[in-house]
Amino acid sequence: MTTTVQDVAVSPWMRKDLLGLWELSADEIRLILQTAGSFREVSERSIKKVPALRGKTVVNLFFEPSTRTRTSFELAAKRLSADIINIAAQTSSLSKGETILDTVRNLEAFNVDIIVIRHQSAGVPHAIARKSAASVINAGDGSHEHPTQALLDMFTIQEKKGRIEGLNVSIIGDIAHSRVARSNVWGLTKLGAKVTLCGPPTLMPKHLDDWNTRVTFDVEEAIEGADVLMLLRIQHERQETTLVPSLREYRLRYGLNAERLARGKPDVLVMHPGPINRGVELDSSVADGPNSVILEQVTNGLAVRMAVLYLVAGQGRPPSIEEK
Amino acid sequence: MTTTVQDVAVSPWMRKDLLGLWELSADEIRLILQTAGSFREVSERSIKKVPALRGKTVVNLFFEPSTRTRTSFELAAKRLSADIINIAAQTSSLSKGETILDTVRNLEAFNVDIIVIRHQSAGVPHAIARKSAASVINAGDGSHEHPTQALLDMFTIQEKKGRIEGLNVSIIGDIAHSRVARSNVWGLTKLGAKVTLCGPPTLMPKHLDDWNTRVTFDVEEAIEGADVLMLLRIQHERQETTLVPSLREYRLRYGLNAERLARGKPDVLVMHPGPINRGVELDSSVADGPNSVILEQVTNGLAVRMAVLYLVAGQGRPPSIEEK
Amino acid sequence: MTTTVQDVAVSPWMRKDLLGLWELSADEIRLILQTAGSFREVSERSIKKVPALRGKTVVNLFFEPSTRTRTSFELAAKRLSADIINIAAQTSSLSKGETILDTVRNLEAFNVDIIVIRHQSAGVPHAIARKSAASVINAGDGSHEHPTQALLDMFTIQEKKGRIEGLNVSIIGDIAHSRVARSNVWGLTKLGAKVTLCGPPTLMPKHLDDWNTRVTFDVEEAIEGADVLMLLRIQHERQETTLVPSLREYRLRYGLNAERLARGKPDVLVMHPGPINRGVELDSSVADGPNSVILEQVTNGLAVRMAVLYLVAGQGRPPSIEEK
Repeated sequence: MTTTVQDVAVSPWMRKDLLGLWELSADEIRLILQTAGSFREVSERSIKKVPALRGKTVVNLFFEPSTRTRTSFELAAKRLSADIINIAAQTSSLSKGETILDTVRNLEAFNVDIIVIRHQSAGVPHAIARKSAASVINAGDGSHEHPTQALLDMFTIQEKKGRIEGLNVSIIGDIAHSRVARSNVWGLTKLGAKVTLCGPPTLMPKHLDDWNTRVTFDVEEAIEGADVLMLLRIQHERQETTLVPSLREYRLRYGLNAERLARGKPDVLVMHPGPINRGVELDSSVADGPNSVILEQVTNGLAVRMAVLYLVAGQGRPPSIEEK
Repeated sequence: MTTTVQDVAVSPWMRKDLLGLWELSADEIRLILQTAGSFREVSERSIKKVPALRGKTVVNLFFEPSTRTRTSFELAAKRLSADIINIAAQTSSLSKGETILDTVRNLEAFNVDIIVIRHQSAGVPHAIARKSAASVINAGDGSHEHPTQALLDMFTIQEKKGRIEGLNVSIIGDIAHSRVARSNVWGLTKLGAKVTLCGPPTLMPKHLDDWNTRVTFDVEEAIEGADVLMLLRIQHERQETTLVPSLREYRLRYGLNAERLARGKPDVLVMHPGPINRGVELDSSVADGPNSVILEQVTNGLAVRMAVLYLVAGQGRPPSIEEK
Repeated sequence: MTTTVQDVAVSPWMRKDLLGLWELSADEIRLILQTAGSFREVSERSIKKVPALRGKTVVNLFFEPSTRTRTSFELAAKRLSADIINIAAQTSSLSKGETILDTVRNLEAFNVDIIVIRHQSAGVPHAIARKSAASVINAGDGSHEHPTQALLDMFTIQEKKGRIEGLNVSIIGDIAHSRVARSNVWGLTKLGAKVTLCGPPTLMPKHLDDWNTRVTFDVEEAIEGADVLMLLRIQHERQETTLVPSLREYRLRYGLNAERLARGKPDVLVMHPGPINRGVELDSSVADGPNSVILEQVTNGLAVRMAVLYLVAGQGRPPSIEEK
């Protein structure tokens, strides 16, 4: 992807925050993907650093533990030369009877530019964004949205397939509790993909009327004709385990193995947001096989997060990504 | 406050450490406040960073958890371009049978320039400062002192009222166990304020002879005629809960609400070191009302900590706070 | 030590990783020590920072807690201007059923340049290094190796004695479980030192045929004629406590006190990797006495780690250690 921001014919970024893909237009999504394209090669240089956000302050405010997403944002901020502070809010003294809003107001009083927030409850980033002058980036809120994950998934599809429009994308797993699924559904359908949702009936949302997706409980049907298979993690630590008979049963019915993959298109992309439960939703032969783009998703995640940090920081000009 | 260090007629900073306000002269306190004035606008710039402490190493050595004070020092160090290392010493392997002094000697062997220390025991920062070539900043030691908190309180008063001398300042809450109260008493009285202490008899220090303050157990009396009301946090996690009948009772007798505030001066400042127990020592209507300067305290805290880091680092010249 | 890399007649560094001293040649060890000599004065400057690794990314991936080694690597990376991310893998969500190899592949997907790894199992750094394009530095693997600790020990000896060849070095303590002992044995013997191992029979390795060392169970014999006494930490938290009758007994039989030290050479060096159990393996009078170089070991550790980071980062040219 060699598109640069200069080539982009779309409107400039006008939002203070990135809260979800639900509220973004197709053009806004395209702008993020194109900006990410400009940033991706920064991480391939010998000197992986640009001065774009020098002197800006980013806070990683994580109410749920997350090493991967936190690390990805931390590296993205550092490679943009921003100052970054990590706050593990679940163990933080901020919680000494203080409201989340008080915590955020305190960060704002430090003249923080961007707050990256993960919270176990849906809607918390939105509530905070309304009250705060700082930009807010949703790094996952409950079962609601995880917009940067969906954006990196879309970036990867676009890069590998050259387009998103018209592609068949099947998302397989616990759709009901997945913020990754939700964000991908909003984003992919806006960009013209045809999305199929697949999983056990107990893990499927009750109301799907406005989702504009196809639903199947049969994994073979989800695989057939798909250009992209997006596997979701079965989360031992959450509620799913009471909703499926057993992990072994789940694997038998919905796990992606070599045999099932062979019935799909030869060039189907296999994607997973990580961390993988090898041998549950995904067999190792598939996770490490030629169709898998799982590690490229990680690489692209860094570029997407650099783009989002850059855009919400209100950089109205093309990114200055020459070496500093 | 547009005073710059260049305008200051006082002597230069001569101390290696900042341990407490007890040992500082009025002129030394004024120098810190004036230096903080120079640094405050750095955090209001688009590029919030100056090269003043580039290549210096600061360690946050926290034996008690504290997100706010730790974050404030971390941001202060980063905005001064220092390198900063966080050590949560309560969970650290440094504690494997090692003495605090060995820990500090090890940090010194790394050629650390400044150690910011919080410890649950009074006097630990002083003991360490005597043994260490590195500068030591007390970020709170037991119930003893919390000098940067008092300095930011004084900075805020000075900025809002134009002076400290002659003002009536009432400190309300658990005076006996509060390092914030102690540091404020030493600092405010040195700069000529008249300090009133107010709280339940069980939370008042036994020996107040050399404190040079007025004492009252009646919150209405503390409010009347006060230019500043400084509320202290009732610390659930410490000993106070056994010393007051209940939080509800405390609120009824000493909590600041709109009705009580209305009997004070119209322009009285309401201050709190945070985190606030809303509905205990302070009602939300007051905390978020027009008299409250609580968030400005947070903002000023960053400037004061930048000033203290800068001064103890032995920067004998005026701060170079142009952008780097 | 004023040797600079330019003076060195040895071959350039050709390895991607630093996994242990077992596999290094004497010339490779000398190159690291000489490079460390160049870096040591960086930490003695007023501005303790060089641009050598600007834009490089280092990850501290610690599966065992360690404040000292982690801090030493973190400071080394920062003083080289690298970006550094700390991952405490024992508490990390990376461990959500994910394999270590998946964790490392994810880091690699971030285009991380160097992974500094500590793990409780021997051989993990080697396994990872084979699979990863990133450079891997072993920061301690089980009871196997801790190469940067041995290198800093050798650097200290070289600096204090002017040479390593021909010196008598006695290592005293739990040899069987000590990665520090192993790495020192391989390194010291390669550079021509004569190594004596001393400790209770229960704490001595079973097979010592290829160690090329002398063994004694008598501490007096180990002290006599030694140029260097290297004391090891009795690790309460590991298995040793069941292998020695009591700490008091250990101290009586093997602890280094002033009386025992007096029977050794007057200029014998007393070394310890820290943290010291004062009054167990080492008395305070000795730890803080004139023969002790324990704090210089800490200082030199930073220089050695800067050198290792610099060399594995593939800097084939002499270090640019002018101020940035």
